[in-house]
Amino acid sequence: MKGNGYGRATPPAGAGAVLKLIREGEAVTRADLARRTGLARSTVAQRVDALLAHKLVIEAGGSESTGGRPPTVLAFNHEVGVVLAADLGATHSRLGVSDLSGTPLAEIAADIDIALGPERVLEWVHERFGELLRKVKRKASDVRGIGIGVPGPVDFHSGEPVNPPIMPGWDAFSIPEWFSTRYDAPVLVDNDVNIMALGEHWTHWRDTEHLLFIKVGTGIGCGIVAGRRIHRGAQGAAGDIGHIRVSGHDDVVCRCGNIGCLEAVASGRALAQRLSEQGIKANHSRDVVRLVRAGEPHAVRMVREAGRSLGEVLAAAVNLFNPSVVVIGGDMAEVHEQLLAGVREVTFRRSLPLATRDLSTVPSRLGDRAGVIGASVMVIEHILDPEVVDRAVSEGVPVGATS
Amino acid sequence: MKGNGYGRATPPAGAGAVLKLIREGEAVTRADLARRTGLARSTVAQRVDALLAHKLVIEAGGSESTGGRPPTVLAFNHEVGVVLAADLGATHSRLGVSDLSGTPLAEIAADIDIALGPERVLEWVHERFGELLRKVKRKASDVRGIGIGVPGPVDFHSGEPVNPPIMPGWDAFSIPEWFSTRYDAPVLVDNDVNIMALGEHWTHWRDTEHLLFIKVGTGIGCGIVAGRRIHRGAQGAAGDIGHIRVSGHDDVVCRCGNIGCLEAVASGRALAQRLSEQGIKANHSRDVVRLVRAGEPHAVRMVREAGRSLGEVLAAAVNLFNPSVVVIGGDMAEVHEQLLAGVREVTFRRSLPLATRDLSTVPSRLGDRAGVIGASVMVIEHILDPEVVDRAVSEGVPVGATS
Repeated sequence: MKGNGYGRATPPAGAGAVLKLIREGEAVTRADLARRTGLARSTVAQRVDALLAHKLVIEAGGSESTGGRPPTVLAFNHEVGVVLAADLGATHSRLGVSDLSGTPLAEIAADIDIALGPERVLEWVHERFGELLRKVKRKASDVRGIGIGVPGPVDFHSGEPVNPPIMPGWDAFSIPEWFSTRYDAPVLVDNDVNIMALGEHWTHWRDTEHLLFIKVGTGIGCGIVAGRRIHRGAQGAAGDIGHIRVSGHDDVVCRCGNIGCLEAVASGRALAQRLSEQGIKANHSRDVVRLVRAGEPHAVRMVREAGRSLGEVLAAAVNLFNPSVVVIGGDMAEVHEQLLAGVREVTFRRSLPLATRDLSTVPSRLGDRAGVIGASVMVIEHILDPEVVDRAVSEGVPVGATS
Repeated sequence: MKGNGYGRATPPAGAGAVLKLIREGEAVTRADLARRTGLARSTVAQRVDALLAHKLVIEAGGSESTGGRPPTVLAFNHEVGVVLAADLGATHSRLGVSDLSGTPLAEIAADIDIALGPERVLEWVHERFGELLRKVKRKASDVRGIGIGVPGPVDFHSGEPVNPPIMPGWDAFSIPEWFSTRYDAPVLVDNDVNIMALGEHWTHWRDTEHLLFIKVGTGIGCGIVAGRRIHRGAQGAAGDIGHIRVSGHDDVVCRCGNIGCLEAVASGRALAQRLSEQGIKANHSRDVVRLVRAGEPHAVRMVREAGRSLGEVLAAAVNLFNPSVVVIGGDMAEVHEQLLAGVREVTFRRSLPLATRDLSTVPSRLGDRAGVIGASVMVIEHILDPEVVDRAVSEGVPVGATS
């Protein structure tokens, strides 16, 4: 009887809505579709014919016999095209090609410095995309969408990085425009933490309404899933928790000019630097992970302390946002036993009982693949959005075609 | 071309959707409605007839003449019923009756102690509701919905308070059930800060996607508007910022058992207590307001310092959530010059430039009426939700009828 104070839309019923029902397995025969949508049988038949003509749906044969001629079962044709995805990190990237169900067909990971600038990095990405397509025997014309994640803030609507601190040359560079001469497909760009949150949510937590994904690597960031959607905020800056102040570290100056920032206290970069100062060789968050795994006591202690600082910020985030799941990802999640011990200790001490009653704090299950999977999901959910499908069908172009 | 990664519904087209278009002035003739919905003229006529029969729509005469017979203009009949609203505070409450456009018809404010327990308080509310109805010459049968705000956490779906710290006897008490024998109308219950956020957003910031409303009174709480909807979180505990830790106050013990909680440092209750300890008589946040207005220097300094502590938590909230507007309400907002000076100082120092580029931090415009207006809006938006209207129309009962 009760809903949110603001109005919700009633179920839609164009070809896109019909496809959604088929794709999610909620209605797989024409009769089911008529029942679920309230549309006339003849209208359903029209919608299905349009989807068949666009090869978005295939007839998968009859369902289990109940006497008489079995009704034809419809299925989403996830092989009608592919999507390309790239999760670009500061120095390391992962790229993949997947079908329209999000199933990865091929992936590659390689080192490349994002600071080489957009032209050189994207040319490199384009070459890797070509290799991936050849590997799965697909052509550029099969590409229905491209999803890109970058390690910095992005204006999601334009696909342009906005003053990204570790991406020299990328500020206001239009990544979709660069690809537009190479593929006839939409290009969506978001920051790395949002696509990781999306990948993890879509794969393992699809029924969870509210989730926070915390990436602890070289830096620290947060992806927010609110009402099963990525919350990007007014400027696309939501989740930027790296510069929230933590207590007890007023002697730590952050590169942003403030003191006691979470990132300056608890990131992989900060830990590596503090270990180096103690004469223990470490340049990168992955070195810290290696040292913890080798049982180096200073490294273990530091990660545990970092977990407490992270827990302090998470306690505030949990009190404000009240998620049911907090996922910890990024390089440092590989030593999640040590990190999560500190996180849980402080989060539970500092959060209200009601907010933590059913709270799960868990390590990422997708690990370093969360980003590339999320980038695929971002673009698949876009091109299969009922409105986008309706438009493609009415214009007689393949879904994802931008012309 | 681009949307959020998750699917959005296409425009709906039942009687409820038609009413929404009329109500928002987006389509006011049958021809406009056919154009906007894509429905056949005959279907539009059917939907409009149903709305006319339910008295939800009235024919308001012809529009400006363009030659020939002018088309009939349709208008939402906001007088078809009324809604009752109550904003129950710890010791002071405000109640109102409004029409279905949210226009207040009558309001009363009075002192009542919430700690008297649900039976006595709700009986009192019921009597006031009766007075309000008589005042505007309406009957109980005209009531289409009731919205209630309470000073504690609420399970929004059941309408029951959940372990509310300052509401003895109210835990798990079903407020909707209590009213169900007295009115045939839905009863929605939420915490006071959420309804204040809703009232302020609906009245003054309707086009703003992401807004935080901070109530600084006896306690401190936050209402979150994300994507123009109230974000309540997994347990309805979202926005509970009163127990986030602020720096520099490790000597302050909060009633929750932790140290340095925002509420123990910066709430009206905390300031009144500290002033009393200094021999300046103050029992309540309103006493602090009075002292600041009178220019009492200790009170002025304390409010400004409270603003800085609040700013520290807000900086974290702004970094995490990236709203475009932060509204400060509650008793203490009456001295917003002093409070906001501290808030802005720290929020802007500690937040990232991208997150604060277009951030407005402003005092509440509705003041102590935000809650009662928000409670009305909450229930109006519910009963005029397209799905709820469709159901009422198809069942042949008035909108808001629960049977």
